[in-house]
Amino acid sequence: MSRVRVHNFSVSLDGFAAGEGQTLEAPFGHAGTRLVEWFFRTRAFHEMQGRAGGDGGVDDALASAWGAGIGAEIMGRNKFGPQRGPWTDEEWKGWWGENPPFHTPVFVLTHHPRPSLEMEGGTVFHFVDASPQEVLKQAREAAGDLDVRIGGGPTTVRQFLAEDLVDHLHVAVVPIVLGRGERLWDGLEGLEQRFRVESVTTPGGTTHLTFTRP
Amino acid sequence: MSRVRVHNFSVSLDGFAAGEGQTLEAPFGHAGTRLVEWFFRTRAFHEMQGRAGGDGGVDDALASAWGAGIGAEIMGRNKFGPQRGPWTDEEWKGWWGENPPFHTPVFVLTHHPRPSLEMEGGTVFHFVDASPQEVLKQAREAAGDLDVRIGGGPTTVRQFLAEDLVDHLHVAVVPIVLGRGERLWDGLEGLEQRFRVESVTTPGGTTHLTFTRP
Repeated sequence: MSRVRVHNFSVSLDGFAAGEGQTLEAPFGHAGTRLVEWFFRTRAFHEMQGRAGGDGGVDDALASAWGAGIGAEIMGRNKFGPQRGPWTDEEWKGWWGENPPFHTPVFVLTHHPRPSLEMEGGTVFHFVDASPQEVLKQAREAAGDLDVRIGGGPTTVRQFLAEDLVDHLHVAVVPIVLGRGERLWDGLEGLEQRFRVESVTTPGGTTHLTFTRP
Repeated sequence: MSRVRVHNFSVSLDGFAAGEGQTLEAPFGHAGTRLVEWFFRTRAFHEMQGRAGGDGGVDDALASAWGAGIGAEIMGRNKFGPQRGPWTDEEWKGWWGENPPFHTPVFVLTHHPRPSLEMEGGTVFHFVDASPQEVLKQAREAAGDLDVRIGGGPTTVRQFLAEDLVDHLHVAVVPIVLGRGERLWDGLEGLEQRFRVESVTTPGGTTHLTFTRP
């Protein structure tokens, strides 16, 4: 059975996974890039962008696990773009340019569906108004034998965790106090009891936790 | 100049440092002992209780730093006991028996002062209705050249951090989602910018963070 996985999901010490005030210019809101600096430094991120360079090491080892064996992604609309409410036009094609790093079908959860969007490199965005269970069924069919990644943002990951649909969760705790934004852990009391939890802090100061279904 | 230090202060992944519903039988509320298991296993905790045994290792190395060079402690009333509001009598002498592990003056912040309480082994509880700055002045005088420890609970530690009165903070992040209780990090946005922050995860899965004033 294919698994449902979350990777490289950064949160602050106070549990915020996104800042306040997302805009076109500030995809992470007031958090800026502070939650993802550890990730931006990795070779995995550089490769994702088609660039050479980046650091190897333990952060990279964890970061690079995100792609292997994934056949589809599910993301929330706030990960796809800064717009809210009905689409005023269909010009917006995500933050990632003509060749997004997913290279699989990507199911974007939205109350405002629009036609699917075929990008270069194998990424196809599908826009669906569905429950976690329903969209997961679609994503599983698209993924075949491969796994499904829940790509974020916090609300989407939290929903899938609350419905106990996640088999593997990789969280990176960044030692900053963000103060405000969107919380990951709300409503998930006792989450750790459903998983085997491992932790490691890397020299850069980021603590990686993996929650794996036993 | 003597420093103000916080040690062995445990929080959950979602930032709670105490559970809901503290009572005489449940000093940590619904959290039970889950936030402090790592600490209970250490040699330092066993010594604190006048018992032999306990584990050495990295958790113990961090735990044992709590006592050296401390000349006074400041604690909130909820650390001292489960009572709220005016004292109905003065029978309660804390959770720690006749010979508490502090062995210094201890200033208990409360809106309901009562006479000081001299215990065995050098611990003297003083009950003061004062601002963080005022009680710190008293504690510093009592401590002489030695440091002052802020002993908790969360509200007290948060107040001293908000007033920028803390020089060294040791937080132990325990990989559980507590769900409810008293948060440590609220109102402390950007706290990390005032400190040099280091992190290490120990094999038991606890992540220790030290915030040290540069």
